[in-house]
Amino acid sequence: MSQTAVKSQTQLDLLSLALGSGTLDDVRRMLSDMPAADVAYLLESSPPKHRHVLRKMLDDELAGEVINELSEDLQADFLGRMDAEEVAQITEGLDDDDVADILQQLPDRITNEVLDSMNQQDRARLEQVMQHADDTAGGLMNTDTITIRADLTLDVVLRYLRRHEEIPEMTDNLIVVTRNDRYIGLLPLRTLLVADPAVSVREMMITDQEPIPATLPDDNVARLFERNDWVSAPVVDDNGKLLGRITIDDVVDVIREDADHSLMSMAGLDEDEDTFAPIRRTAPRRAMWLGINLVTAFIAASFINLFQGTIEKVVALAVLMPIVASMGGIAGTQTLTVLVRGMALGQVTATNQGWLINREFAIGLLNGVTWAGVVAIAASVWFEDWTLGLVIACAMVINLVTAGLTGAALPLLLRRMNIDPALAGGVVLTTVTDVVGFVSFLGLATVFYG
Amino acid sequence: MSQTAVKSQTQLDLLSLALGSGTLDDVRRMLSDMPAADVAYLLESSPPKHRHVLRKMLDDELAGEVINELSEDLQADFLGRMDAEEVAQITEGLDDDDVADILQQLPDRITNEVLDSMNQQDRARLEQVMQHADDTAGGLMNTDTITIRADLTLDVVLRYLRRHEEIPEMTDNLIVVTRNDRYIGLLPLRTLLVADPAVSVREMMITDQEPIPATLPDDNVARLFERNDWVSAPVVDDNGKLLGRITIDDVVDVIREDADHSLMSMAGLDEDEDTFAPIRRTAPRRAMWLGINLVTAFIAASFINLFQGTIEKVVALAVLMPIVASMGGIAGTQTLTVLVRGMALGQVTATNQGWLINREFAIGLLNGVTWAGVVAIAASVWFEDWTLGLVIACAMVINLVTAGLTGAALPLLLRRMNIDPALAGGVVLTTVTDVVGFVSFLGLATVFYG
Repeated sequence: MSQTAVKSQTQLDLLSLALGSGTLDDVRRMLSDMPAADVAYLLESSPPKHRHVLRKMLDDELAGEVINELSEDLQADFLGRMDAEEVAQITEGLDDDDVADILQQLPDRITNEVLDSMNQQDRARLEQVMQHADDTAGGLMNTDTITIRADLTLDVVLRYLRRHEEIPEMTDNLIVVTRNDRYIGLLPLRTLLVADPAVSVREMMITDQEPIPATLPDDNVARLFERNDWVSAPVVDDNGKLLGRITIDDVVDVIREDADHSLMSMAGLDEDEDTFAPIRRTAPRRAMWLGINLVTAFIAASFINLFQGTIEKVVALAVLMPIVASMGGIAGTQTLTVLVRGMALGQVTATNQGWLINREFAIGLLNGVTWAGVVAIAASVWFEDWTLGLVIACAMVINLVTAGLTGAALPLLLRRMNIDPALAGGVVLTTVTDVVGFVSFLGLATVFYG
Repeated sequence: MSQTAVKSQTQLDLLSLALGSGTLDDVRRMLSDMPAADVAYLLESSPPKHRHVLRKMLDDELAGEVINELSEDLQADFLGRMDAEEVAQITEGLDDDDVADILQQLPDRITNEVLDSMNQQDRARLEQVMQHADDTAGGLMNTDTITIRADLTLDVVLRYLRRHEEIPEMTDNLIVVTRNDRYIGLLPLRTLLVADPAVSVREMMITDQEPIPATLPDDNVARLFERNDWVSAPVVDDNGKLLGRITIDDVVDVIREDADHSLMSMAGLDEDEDTFAPIRRTAPRRAMWLGINLVTAFIAASFINLFQGTIEKVVALAVLMPIVASMGGIAGTQTLTVLVRGMALGQVTATNQGWLINREFAIGLLNGVTWAGVVAIAASVWFEDWTLGLVIACAMVINLVTAGLTGAALPLLLRRMNIDPALAGGVVLTTVTDVVGFVSFLGLATVFYG
């Protein structure tokens, strides 16, 4: 491991030790020269008791930056204990989009108090960002842009920049606008630094980067950034008027959250789930998910119940039936996962979904036949009963084909119904593969042994 | 949906139609004015037959950029059909790190031929990048940096930049080095543009951004970028000598791949898995995963087999036993997912893992007791047998506690054994919860009904 990585790991361990043994002066000293993002990381990696101690040691300025870096779950935790005045204090100095994110999580009463405590100009800017939903381009943007006009020469632009005390972070382009603030193009700093100062902005600006509409969903924004390798991009309203710009640091958070969303949702968890959430918060959320799955388990059991007579006659069926059901679940989950990821990446469309369903049908059939053979032999030898082998083989093929078809068609269907396939897909899928697995196996057995 | 998003969606649909109906001139015209990343996206979203047609329409320059944007699976597919000369042609004009990635996927013979066809300087640069493993900072970096010396004035730096034809993309900082190329600090372009031209680089450079060691694993690099909101960062060797720099566009790919890795691995899939891979490639991979799970299913079945006598006496046990096993599987998967994500984010350490195992034990106990009550009543009423209710309630508590403990401890154990918890965790976990579920339920039943 490298020095840098070792450094923060060691800090974390040292801090835990210091927190555990109660030498708070050591902790305070360690925190004082740590960047906000590292403090946020320490908080996210600490159990609740340590968090409580850490939190009390942050001064207002650091607290604002730290809160901004935390996941939503933890932000809510911090903010829940603050009044409007404290919120106003700690959010001073943050970017508009970050302040908007924080305010949107608070009760309306507190949000209004915070807005009232601001000066006219700050409030107007913030209210503009807060008009836009959190998960759209408008909610991601901030308003600290440097705009220039197309008829200036580069020399004038350079002198204009020198009048600034500083240029906003992540500024890779100056934004070229009309007299009415309509977006025209971008002038990269890297062009400004090498081009002839006598030429005009119009000659050097790039015009092929389309601006982002404020209403574009944030996952589409992320895909545009990923695909075009942007560091920042201008945001416009319906009339092409410049509203602000989005920077890659905020987009990276969207990418991370979107990717985590699929993983966490498939286990019935929220992507904002705090790894070290206290029991009282985690247990009820998980209990609900277990309850939903309990209902589906009873549905599957009620189908087994139909075949009590057959099981009584051939107890080996009870031994083997979970194999058929679980293989269907595994195969279906593979297909579902491929589809969920493909949909998250925007690859699955009306024109290619038919191909995918066909492919999954074929794979289900192929792998069903392959493993049916193996299972048939294993079962026949184990219970010295070739009928049993035949029955389980047929049931396997039926269930793996069902798994492939359901795993592919279900997420497409759920998406059309505006239900999140990552969240609901697994529950419905395993119910289907359990029921079809049990019914096909026990049903065929009833026919053969009846 | 926005214009931009609609645009590429419509392009994709149009292209599919054009490919389907065979009007290839239309396709060629559409491709000619599309950026490489969009073409790559179209390829990734197309079934194999269409890909084949698309591929043949790309000229060398576009082909290089397109291949660079593709996922590894598809890259291999493209490159597999090329000889050394073709590879050399299409990789002209790509960044060093990208060329290195491509060459590392080819057979040694072809790689050497491609290197031989290059001029001395290009080859030396490439060989330097290729020394480093693909998944380290060294493998991510490219060598097109602009370096300056600390004793220059900003005015001299500005004039030096003007002698360049262009500044490399994603250049937000100039890198300050000693006479011996050792890294000292960074001069942001945004400082250069506003600071007094008469002052020296030394006075204005930032020195608190530590350089990245070339051996740092790429997931740690990604975490540093995420945490510090970097656009680019310098890479150094063991002696602090500057080797190159890493840019955010390559880091975004690492973040995406790492996040996808957990999702895909938990279903036994590869994160590079091509959504539209042909059957002959997908079926065998999935068959292997099914085979592994088949073994574990037989292990669970062999435990049920021990209780044939009890099941014969009380057939309702066969009806209810999958409920106990599946609830354990669901609960365990939730815990495992939280741990896998926490580990991927670097949050789980030696000092806090004990806390996590304790919490998961407590949650398992709490939710076990909660749902055991419900299940007990449901089972008792259904089969009019209160003993059955008592047995299933005890088994549920036992299995949910086991699920919580296993879900938390197993990934930690696997990590210590250098086995990927995302890949192996689920298989081992469900085997444990199946076996414990079946054995506790049927075992207790044997005691009570025996």
